[in-house]
Amino acid sequence: MRTLIENATIIPMTERELSLRGSILIEDGIIKAVGSISGEADETIDADGMIALPAFVDAHTHLAMVLMRNYKDTSENLQDWLSEIFPIEDKLNETDIYEASRLGAAELIESGCTTFADMYFYAWSTVKAAREAGIRGVIGQTFMNDDADAEDRIRNIAPRIIEEIGDDDSFRLDAAVHAVYTSTPECYERAAEWVRERGTMLNTHLSETRKEVDDCIARYGKTPVELLDSLGIFSVPVYAAHGVHISESEMETLKAHGVSVVHNPSSNMKLASGIAPVKQYLKHGINVALGTDGASSNNNLSMIKEMNAAALLATIANMTPSAARPYDILEMATIGGARALGLDGRIGTLEEGKEADITLINARDANMAPVNDPFSAIVFSADRKNVDTVLCRGRKLLEHGRLLTVDKEEAIRKTTERWNDILRR
Amino acid sequence: MRTLIENATIIPMTERELSLRGSILIEDGIIKAVGSISGEADETIDADGMIALPAFVDAHTHLAMVLMRNYKDTSENLQDWLSEIFPIEDKLNETDIYEASRLGAAELIESGCTTFADMYFYAWSTVKAAREAGIRGVIGQTFMNDDADAEDRIRNIAPRIIEEIGDDDSFRLDAAVHAVYTSTPECYERAAEWVRERGTMLNTHLSETRKEVDDCIARYGKTPVELLDSLGIFSVPVYAAHGVHISESEMETLKAHGVSVVHNPSSNMKLASGIAPVKQYLKHGINVALGTDGASSNNNLSMIKEMNAAALLATIANMTPSAARPYDILEMATIGGARALGLDGRIGTLEEGKEADITLINARDANMAPVNDPFSAIVFSADRKNVDTVLCRGRKLLEHGRLLTVDKEEAIRKTTERWNDILRR
Repeated sequence: MRTLIENATIIPMTERELSLRGSILIEDGIIKAVGSISGEADETIDADGMIALPAFVDAHTHLAMVLMRNYKDTSENLQDWLSEIFPIEDKLNETDIYEASRLGAAELIESGCTTFADMYFYAWSTVKAAREAGIRGVIGQTFMNDDADAEDRIRNIAPRIIEEIGDDDSFRLDAAVHAVYTSTPECYERAAEWVRERGTMLNTHLSETRKEVDDCIARYGKTPVELLDSLGIFSVPVYAAHGVHISESEMETLKAHGVSVVHNPSSNMKLASGIAPVKQYLKHGINVALGTDGASSNNNLSMIKEMNAAALLATIANMTPSAARPYDILEMATIGGARALGLDGRIGTLEEGKEADITLINARDANMAPVNDPFSAIVFSADRKNVDTVLCRGRKLLEHGRLLTVDKEEAIRKTTERWNDILRR
Repeated sequence: MRTLIENATIIPMTERELSLRGSILIEDGIIKAVGSISGEADETIDADGMIALPAFVDAHTHLAMVLMRNYKDTSENLQDWLSEIFPIEDKLNETDIYEASRLGAAELIESGCTTFADMYFYAWSTVKAAREAGIRGVIGQTFMNDDADAEDRIRNIAPRIIEEIGDDDSFRLDAAVHAVYTSTPECYERAAEWVRERGTMLNTHLSETRKEVDDCIARYGKTPVELLDSLGIFSVPVYAAHGVHISESEMETLKAHGVSVVHNPSSNMKLASGIAPVKQYLKHGINVALGTDGASSNNNLSMIKEMNAAALLATIANMTPSAARPYDILEMATIGGARALGLDGRIGTLEEGKEADITLINARDANMAPVNDPFSAIVFSADRKNVDTVLCRGRKLLEHGRLLTVDKEEAIRKTTERWNDILRR
């Protein structure tokens, strides 16, 4: 199967601020060529007026939390909000998670994203929903509490997720240790040991709020970064969400261990958690990815909105647009995310040999014309309505803004039904 | 002509956090009833799954600046950016402005807005384009430089705009004095005199950057607010854009004179101008409106994106979501804007006797379900793709996301052609 995307403005993300006009040839899900191409194809996509770029990587989310979208979402801070959310989470079951994950997958695809890193409960249901939707997922086996609980999850929950994934290399099971305020050092150690055995990665929330850092110092005499470093957790590959309250010396630790930081600007602003020092991360050469966080603290799963938030926040926080240029933001949303998840050999750029995860943005629209600068156009002007076509491994998931792989109306109806039922439980 | 909007979730903006399920009856462009309604209508709009709210008021923009969208838009600050923009503006003609205003009107409608306050050149062309698109505009006669220049504009430019408006009460011509760094005190005084004679309002950029304030103090020994107050400018009704660098005592001056502030969060963040003290404005009881500013410093004309930016910025700037709740943000985007422009007797709420400027947001979409809280849903989750139907004075401008009054493809093509030509001039 050969697909040819023609007449596009291509942002390959292989070279700083490079854009070119041309075609992309895909063969059996793999990019065969980018640029001036002639030849036959089974399918041709006319991308005239469109910008082609690597499909986005949402490097931190909780897909099924679409259930709690706009629910008690203006709590005073993260801790107050979690006190509303945790009792709801105790009532969830695997069917809730399946339906909500379908809806979440639909939202990801509609906003141009084909890869997500997830941390949540009943994760086999999320794998099932995401596979049906045709996207790929790096799934976290959630760890909380202590090492006994970790052992129990490794024995009794992880096998269900591993079974659901089977030999599908669109999915991988990582360890997702919630945070230092919910998980003991022994829990982190057990999760890291499991990750080392399996050759996967470790995902965690890290220094999201000032309170988290202060409480960690009070309890362990160390910041969260210092604590995890002292436990040897960074000896396995780690991607850490938030990284809002991180000192320069902690950045050196993260850099030394190749830890990626996943920036979640909307959630951090909305929950008044603070402003991640993105400019400093970039200066230190730390890999920065971008994530939406869950829809309950965002309240979307749109990487396009997230790029806009990231760009505006970096500028105002540093009082200079040079803190993070549109191209830097695009990197976070594509190859930066792929690197964070160890997938940069397969996705994150448009170049020969990579898998064909491609998003076409229709720039010939009232909100994007004239384009002038394609990087600014994507980061500052684009929205979900401009997302025309989305391919994952060469398979079309969205065409002219219409979902092909998820029955959206059914997903909305069933998720809403589940949610109404959860509130009655 | 009677139109009935049925089965909607209605946010009338008449009472804090009020939403109700019901219908809206419109007769000859006027809202006749809101709530439980039965009876005959010539047209029925089924708004099941939709949220009905007053169409947005973009209280500060430069519509035709869509031409410079994404053009050299990441300059270091406002002054550097203006140094890129001013030479381009010298090349513009009335046909450029007409085509660009059409495209701008299309973007406003697609994002749910029916009223805009504009400040730009060749404004009769903007009136013409906006009238054809079916929206309403408060048009600024631009004033810059000194009183001789003001006199010249009053004699030679304003009459053309007044003639274009004719007896169309969808438009009004105000004075738009650019700013204290481009316009002399005498220019402000002449504009205010003209406004007083005409019984209209005065629009100006006010304290947008720290540099503007510092330069004003160096030149006049007064801040911009103090300067305009000493000149008696606030004795006419004023709405002022930006208001980023304003002290508590200046707020008392603004409050005493009933000056409205138009908040432009995206532009202020993007140009690193600073963060307007919105929380303090609300505390002082100052009327706050919302504006997109021009598409060249935003880079959209979307009040939906602007609400999202305003809510996130207020929260992170004050480290509390109580700084500006979703309902406060919705007020800025609707009735606050109407008040700022002196149109609150006609638009800004959904209630009997008001003109029927109504936006229907489809909340049964992948990015909005479950709705849970309709105020959060609009401010944090909605986007342009959710804007289903837009009415202005009861006339349908957008239906199921499709523009009825502007040939969008033509507007995009012609604006792009004009822009390419401008770059060659």
